[in-house]
Amino acid sequence: MFMFVGITLAFVFIILAMIIGGGLGAFIDVPSFLIVIGGTAAATIAKFPPKDVGKGFKTAMLASKGRKDISDLNQLVDTTEELLKKTRKEGLISIEGQSSGNDFYDDGLAYMLAAPDAKALERYLSDQIQNVINQAQRGKAVLDALADAAPAFGMIGTVIGLILMLGNLDDPSTIGPSLAVALLTTLYGAIVANAAFIPMAEKISSWQAVTVHEREMIAICLMYIKNGESPMIMREAVKPYLTHDFYKLPEV
Amino acid sequence: MFMFVGITLAFVFIILAMIIGGGLGAFIDVPSFLIVIGGTAAATIAKFPPKDVGKGFKTAMLASKGRKDISDLNQLVDTTEELLKKTRKEGLISIEGQSSGNDFYDDGLAYMLAAPDAKALERYLSDQIQNVINQAQRGKAVLDALADAAPAFGMIGTVIGLILMLGNLDDPSTIGPSLAVALLTTLYGAIVANAAFIPMAEKISSWQAVTVHEREMIAICLMYIKNGESPMIMREAVKPYLTHDFYKLPEV
Amino acid sequence: MFMFVGITLAFVFIILAMIIGGGLGAFIDVPSFLIVIGGTAAATIAKFPPKDVGKGFKTAMLASKGRKDISDLNQLVDTTEELLKKTRKEGLISIEGQSSGNDFYDDGLAYMLAAPDAKALERYLSDQIQNVINQAQRGKAVLDALADAAPAFGMIGTVIGLILMLGNLDDPSTIGPSLAVALLTTLYGAIVANAAFIPMAEKISSWQAVTVHEREMIAICLMYIKNGESPMIMREAVKPYLTHDFYKLPEV
Amino acid sequence: MFMFVGITLAFVFIILAMIIGGGLGAFIDVPSFLIVIGGTAAATIAKFPPKDVGKGFKTAMLASKGRKDISDLNQLVDTTEELLKKTRKEGLISIEGQSSGNDFYDDGLAYMLAAPDAKALERYLSDQIQNVINQAQRGKAVLDALADAAPAFGMIGTVIGLILMLGNLDDPSTIGPSLAVALLTTLYGAIVANAAFIPMAEKISSWQAVTVHEREMIAICLMYIKNGESPMIMREAVKPYLTHDFYKLPEV
Amino acid sequence: MFMFVGITLAFVFIILAMIIGGGLGAFIDVPSFLIVIGGTAAATIAKFPPKDVGKGFKTAMLASKGRKDISDLNQLVDTTEELLKKTRKEGLISIEGQSSGNDFYDDGLAYMLAAPDAKALERYLSDQIQNVINQAQRGKAVLDALADAAPAFGMIGTVIGLILMLGNLDDPSTIGPSLAVALLTTLYGAIVANAAFIPMAEKISSWQAVTVHEREMIAICLMYIKNGESPMIMREAVKPYLTHDFYKLPEV
Repeated sequence: MFMFVGITLAFVFIILAMIIGGGLGAFIDVPSFLIVIGGTAAATIAKFPPKDVGKGFKTAMLASKGRKDISDLNQLVDTTEELLKKTRKEGLISIEGQSSGNDFYDDGLAYMLAAPDAKALERYLSDQIQNVINQAQRGKAVLDALADAAPAFGMIGTVIGLILMLGNLDDPSTIGPSLAVALLTTLYGAIVANAAFIPMAEKISSWQAVTVHEREMIAICLMYIKNGESPMIMREAVKPYLTHDFYKLPEV
Repeated sequence: MFMFVGITLAFVFIILAMIIGGGLGAFIDVPSFLIVIGGTAAATIAKFPPKDVGKGFKTAMLASKGRKDISDLNQLVDTTEELLKKTRKEGLISIEGQSSGNDFYDDGLAYMLAAPDAKALERYLSDQIQNVINQAQRGKAVLDALADAAPAFGMIGTVIGLILMLGNLDDPSTIGPSLAVALLTTLYGAIVANAAFIPMAEKISSWQAVTVHEREMIAICLMYIKNGESPMIMREAVKPYLTHDFYKLPEV
Repeated sequence: MFMFVGITLAFVFIILAMIIGGGLGAFIDVPSFLIVIGGTAAATIAKFPPKDVGKGFKTAMLASKGRKDISDLNQLVDTTEELLKKTRKEGLISIEGQSSGNDFYDDGLAYMLAAPDAKALERYLSDQIQNVINQAQRGKAVLDALADAAPAFGMIGTVIGLILMLGNLDDPSTIGPSLAVALLTTLYGAIVANAAFIPMAEKISSWQAVTVHEREMIAICLMYIKNGESPMIMREAVKPYLTHDFYKLPEV
Repeated sequence: MFMFVGITLAFVFIILAMIIGGGLGAFIDVPSFLIVIGGTAAATIAKFPPKDVGKGFKTAMLASKGRKDISDLNQLVDTTEELLKKTRKEGLISIEGQSSGNDFYDDGLAYMLAAPDAKALERYLSDQIQNVINQAQRGKAVLDALADAAPAFGMIGTVIGLILMLGNLDDPSTIGPSLAVALLTTLYGAIVANAAFIPMAEKISSWQAVTVHEREMIAICLMYIKNGESPMIMREAVKPYLTHDFYKLPEV
Repeated sequence: MFMFVGITLAFVFIILAMIIGGGLGAFIDVPSFLIVIGGTAAATIAKFPPKDVGKGFKTAMLASKGRKDISDLNQLVDTTEELLKKTRKEGLISIEGQSSGNDFYDDGLAYMLAAPDAKALERYLSDQIQNVINQAQRGKAVLDALADAAPAFGMIGTVIGLILMLGNLDDPSTIGPSLAVALLTTLYGAIVANAAFIPMAEKISSWQAVTVHEREMIAICLMYIKNGESPMIMREAVKPYLTHDFYKLPEV
């Protein structure tokens, strides 16, 4: 949600700067807009299968939905402790049908009951984590490509405008306005890249980091359940995933 | 196919911008075109064996042909389940001559029957996957080099034009047109890089990701057949390759 | 602490340059300031969860606190030697409650007494080190994003100013001042990036290197205590962490 | 050989552009040439031991000599099959003194007879491959450094020229020619980088890829001889190294 | 030593270009110098602990001292052969107190006698090699930061100068000289980066490559002594470290 707030705010600041400077009128030119957006879109279709472009935006939307608070990770550890105690007493089969409220956790529990051994479970969990990384990186690749193409087509539009202006220097009074129009494509390219595509690409990155962090901790929890080890040791093992404050170092 | 559509559309948008701005005439200059294309081609011949340059374009063409839909991966898993059931009953030899409709899958089946052990098969499959990566990266290197060289030679052409113009400032009326011509090489370099070479290089990258994804799943399928493990476990193992939607995270 | 000294000094040099050149007045323009800071902040909110932005700055603050001197590492080795001698005589349990004055060291000792085996301890220590790397990299990502966004929004502000100026060339006397104002956003963006955000991002990097170095040595110390190996061998093993001078090579 | 053809052609295109534009005279300025070449050379001497600079160019020359055709790899596989059949009958000692026409292959055979075990042979082969990578990367580092330094010193020369010109604006008729001369260093820097140093650096890279590909296949051949495995399995194992065409994927 | 020669020569070429162009006078401006050097220094203090900045330069000095010739590596191999023969006859203890003239080699020998097993020795040697890499990279990070900061503060100085000039266009005769002075900071930043900091950073890199190469070969020598393997096999094993010429490939 903050992604949309941030993008909206960035556009608000830019539009305010235009209005304060002298009105929006000087900044609106449909053909300039079409060359930047059209060129960027065309180049993107050439780069990725159309389905992947849609998925790139879908991933950004998903990433914008935010993440659970750190307290949720603590809760998952509590759940793990309970399940661990239960399985150590009553065996793995006793946790069938249990739910933690976290989809990845629950799918892992279900797989655990079917998995032939701990190694198969470990591989399944690491494949699932790799899957998040792969999909996030492919979504980010789409938005990175958009963020690269927009300023490039903006620059192409400006050079086209410059060439047209330079070929018609007869009337000096038109130089300024022609140059102003030529610069519009550069402006559009810079704005859509920096206020929209780059933030969306970065959002996918930061979302990936958080999701992988969560899933890695869950994978550790599930492995401890599978191996039936001591809850206390499990708690120590996941501690690095719950800590968010560094050890303090003294002043030099 | 979409690669060509995208590249064509990008050129259409650029040419439209030129026509709307005042006609194509101002943007056509054969010598400017020759220095950008000739310099870029010459530098590329210097960088890669001629055969590799051809292969780079061939790889981009191949990549543009698109990919099978996700449903095909599901079909390969179904085929794997059938073969797995068969081999568990009748032995590996019973699958001789079977075809899945996927060349990589079929070659793997053939090798499996000849392979001395599971380790040899695993190595063969991972070499084949590495082969796709190597060839894609070498094709991409060619198109990346083209995408780097074109703007550079465009810039060299513009500086040459600037120097010529600055040496002959006697007639001010020629400054504008001379500058316009000087900028043409920059424009040409930017256009061929951003509307053609960069999209082709990126297409190879996105194609590589999809192909490696497919082959990795097939490799897992074949290893399960070789090892004769339970079809249910096989289905769980390939699940991360079939999933395309992330787990949903609640709003912050 | 030196981080703040350095940032302050950088601003002092820049402000001195402004004053010597002709007074600060020409460099103050609130709307220009708002577009750079507002746009940068908005883009950053779009890129990271708000909590992470705060943590990025918090990590930079922590990093600025400096680090223990190399002599402290020597002291930790002395402590390790004592504990090692003690455990070899009286068993691991004898070191319960010991303190080295270093939090990471002490936590490791506590975990060691609870850990089922050396492998669990090794994993715990490596997870803790990875944790520093992850948190430092996420903090650095925030400051890198700020350092990228500020010049970009500065450039956008300047292009907006240029377009407004070019649309109103009627009064030549206003060209200079308008251009001066247009350049202010570029200046603001360059200053906050190079005098504040980039130094903070780099500080986190150099702090990470030092902290990981320290923790890796402590991890080795703790593993030697756990394994009860000879103090002399332990001293040799940590020697690379204490050495700061390269072997001298003769002149060519 | 194609490297020199490409570099020569690139210079031909650039010189043609100059001649068509108005004659070479405007582009020749000895002091401008000296500052770019001298500064670049001086910076390179500062960066690398003089011997390494020579080796960088030597590596580029070697890389320019081209590579064996794919058919040669097939021939090496045929040779391997013969040797494999021989050793399986008559023992490893029977292949003493055999030659394949490929130096790396023959050295490997010689080492194989001396090597205590397969592991020692594997290590030797992988060290030899790593050696190609190390030397290619060090050669490329030299040419990359040259390609970075040339435009930088070109830019320094242009700024020096600009400052000199701006200090003497009294006679407007000299502005153009002064500016033209100032731009010459930028032009020289861009030309030597893009038409010579960058192609040479890239050539080393593409040569490294081909050489490593060849050596990796030879290493596999030699390991199969050492282990005395079936020629058919050996042929399957090297197949990925001989294939240059991807599996065809259907249109989307 | 060549580092200083190269840096000095680069400055000589630049100063010559200034003198030939019209005298050094136009290029000296103390405030411009102070903003570039002061800003760069301040940013660097903010980025690294002061001690690390000093160490960065110290590492560059060390790197500039050059390296032993390849013949020295051959000599170390001869020494290794002697020691190997000796230990195979008289046991490891017989080499106590031997010296090879290379500090790293001798320290390794000393550790070998104390080390409990081959694995401990291998770890010690790889830690020592990693130590060179870590220290070189931290030294390089300092010089890279300087090389990035100098042009950035040069650019900030130029924008400040431009803004001041644009605010006072009343007297056209001052435009040229003001612009010339504004460009001085850009020039200073480009010069110190390209003629001093970048070469020093690169020097550390090339020195690291050579030192790691040497130490890796020594590590192999020492492991062979520890394991008491055949001198002939040892000679083959280090061969890749002594070879500097590639296998020749035939012309295409």
